[in-house]
Amino acid sequence: MVNSGLEGIVAARTSLSHVDGERGELVIAGFPVDELAQHATFEETTWLLWHGELPSTRQLEAFHMQLAAERSLPAATVALLNECARVSLDPMDALRMAAGTISIRSDDASAIVARFPTIIATFSRLRRGAEPIAPREDLGHAANFLYMLAGEAPEPEQVRGLETYLNTVVDHGLNASTFTARVITSTGSDLVSAVVGALGALKGPLHGGAPGPALDMVFEIGEASRAEDVLRRKIEAGDKLMGFGHRVYKVRDPRADVLAAAAERMYTRAGDMSLYGLARAVEATAIRLLEEYKPGRRLQTNVEFYTALLLHGLGLDTPLFTPTFAVSRVSGWIAHAFEQRSENRIIRPQSEYSGPRDRKWVSLSNRVEAPAQ
Amino acid sequence: MVNSGLEGIVAARTSLSHVDGERGELVIAGFPVDELAQHATFEETTWLLWHGELPSTRQLEAFHMQLAAERSLPAATVALLNECARVSLDPMDALRMAAGTISIRSDDASAIVARFPTIIATFSRLRRGAEPIAPREDLGHAANFLYMLAGEAPEPEQVRGLETYLNTVVDHGLNASTFTARVITSTGSDLVSAVVGALGALKGPLHGGAPGPALDMVFEIGEASRAEDVLRRKIEAGDKLMGFGHRVYKVRDPRADVLAAAAERMYTRAGDMSLYGLARAVEATAIRLLEEYKPGRRLQTNVEFYTALLLHGLGLDTPLFTPTFAVSRVSGWIAHAFEQRSENRIIRPQSEYSGPRDRKWVSLSNRVEAPAQ
Repeated sequence: MVNSGLEGIVAARTSLSHVDGERGELVIAGFPVDELAQHATFEETTWLLWHGELPSTRQLEAFHMQLAAERSLPAATVALLNECARVSLDPMDALRMAAGTISIRSDDASAIVARFPTIIATFSRLRRGAEPIAPREDLGHAANFLYMLAGEAPEPEQVRGLETYLNTVVDHGLNASTFTARVITSTGSDLVSAVVGALGALKGPLHGGAPGPALDMVFEIGEASRAEDVLRRKIEAGDKLMGFGHRVYKVRDPRADVLAAAAERMYTRAGDMSLYGLARAVEATAIRLLEEYKPGRRLQTNVEFYTALLLHGLGLDTPLFTPTFAVSRVSGWIAHAFEQRSENRIIRPQSEYSGPRDRKWVSLSNRVEAPAQ
Repeated sequence: MVNSGLEGIVAARTSLSHVDGERGELVIAGFPVDELAQHATFEETTWLLWHGELPSTRQLEAFHMQLAAERSLPAATVALLNECARVSLDPMDALRMAAGTISIRSDDASAIVARFPTIIATFSRLRRGAEPIAPREDLGHAANFLYMLAGEAPEPEQVRGLETYLNTVVDHGLNASTFTARVITSTGSDLVSAVVGALGALKGPLHGGAPGPALDMVFEIGEASRAEDVLRRKIEAGDKLMGFGHRVYKVRDPRADVLAAAAERMYTRAGDMSLYGLARAVEATAIRLLEEYKPGRRLQTNVEFYTALLLHGLGLDTPLFTPTFAVSRVSGWIAHAFEQRSENRIIRPQSEYSGPRDRKWVSLSNRVEAPAQ
């Protein structure tokens, strides 16, 4: 029996997160996602995942200082990012490459988490011909990321919006990137290797961490009055509506509510309310039409729809959405690596051989050319 | 039911290789390993794995030229290797980092295979303060690797020795690095990402691709007359004898015979026969003592023992053994990536949640410090 997707196989016991698709619930280290996401700083969430408990004042202060001190990049990494920008590399490739170089100076968990935002902000500025901005040690992880991207300190509601996003997507069961990190860790390898492998998996379009297309659809619709027409045309043409439906969640993705609330707060105070209003109108129309065309399928707004709206509202370009997802998820990957190490067993399934046997060598001059496959 | 090592779970159907541990057989793309390893060039083996058939004269010539043309490294990669050498990085870390940068110029399968030897030879020379040597297009893959390491063209028996080694270890079922490459590929990601993830897994000490310690034991013994004493002491102290026993093979590892014959031929013509004689004496004593102390366990010489002897005879330093293993296995990883793509299903097992639920947020000032885990 070949189970090529490993569906239904339980490959790890974890206390990091729990996805209940039928009930539409996500638990992160014991907290319902909304309870955690709206309150915590990203430093608190990371500490929680790595230690199982929220940090004390003293621990949080020390962790903040440690992360802040490790934000800057080795010169070799900046040179590499320059080259990546020069050849217009995809930001996820640039992040994977630059993250790999973290081993030059350290392979400590906090150094990895600390440097992801610096890598992305540096690359983002280099690719548009701007000078990179050095990190500021006085700012928190989320605030400093926005500062390094824009060159000015963000407003509190922007920081809270990003922080809520980072908390919301930090861990989500045994998805393909998290599983990759655990397989690599299971051989006894180092954290940078695990994280770089996970980045490679996250980059794949089937991973589902790419919120860009959901926003593209909202922009394509442009105004609320066109939503029904455009969406009907898409559904009737058999197109998938980006931002709706989820493999696991049969009811509303619990992360969507948290992010919708965060987006609303942020747009109300600092953003473009007309875009927010348009997105809500598109969402309502999409859900109504999906129920009309696919009754009983319960296709609901997923995390990508509001991620796109929130990150766009924070001034991030669409190509930075997946790297920003990684800014959060890297803390989850590392937490899984720690968990894997604490009770390790090398992860090594089997394969079934379906090829020929007992072939005999044929010398070059006696070979008949087979068509290249 | 949690199966944390995925033992006994069949995660892929493959026509690339078949490991029969009970019978001590390894099939590579239909050929018994000894039939393939002694005849093929590494270009032929790679083509075979990627296309299912041996190449014709025309195809082989074109493939050779393609690989030869893609050997040189982008300046950014060389700069990175310089930095890795400066901080005395482990060669596997340097290879993982530099391999990640292949995306700067190409993510084509042949470019990846072509550049592995250049990366390793460049790093090896930089770390001992020597100038890197540019690849030679007229030499085959194996010969050019030895040329770039040593700075002079190798003897035919050395080339044949390395070629035999590369053919022997090119694929071996669904080990942890190959599985990593398939998981990453299953998300729709690119080849460089898959290969870099696999390198991270290969680096782990539990992966079993590290032949260094087997040779260290032979050097420690130093002369045949001391073998029994030293080995008895090790076994009685409960030490594992490096180079003996294999998780899967219950009889002799079929790769060991191929490599023993290759090593003998090479040492006879070009090497230090006293080291070869010592190694054979150590092997014979080790097998006799293992049977004496652990009767019925059938502990036999494994692939690492003769790999170490062969690679040492080719002038490679011990730290280059695992990177050289990767020079071969990368062709297997890419073949698995192709196979995964041809019938893809995202690889995504499940996890079982064992943590708390319904935790309530506690504000910072109300927290009691938990001991850091």
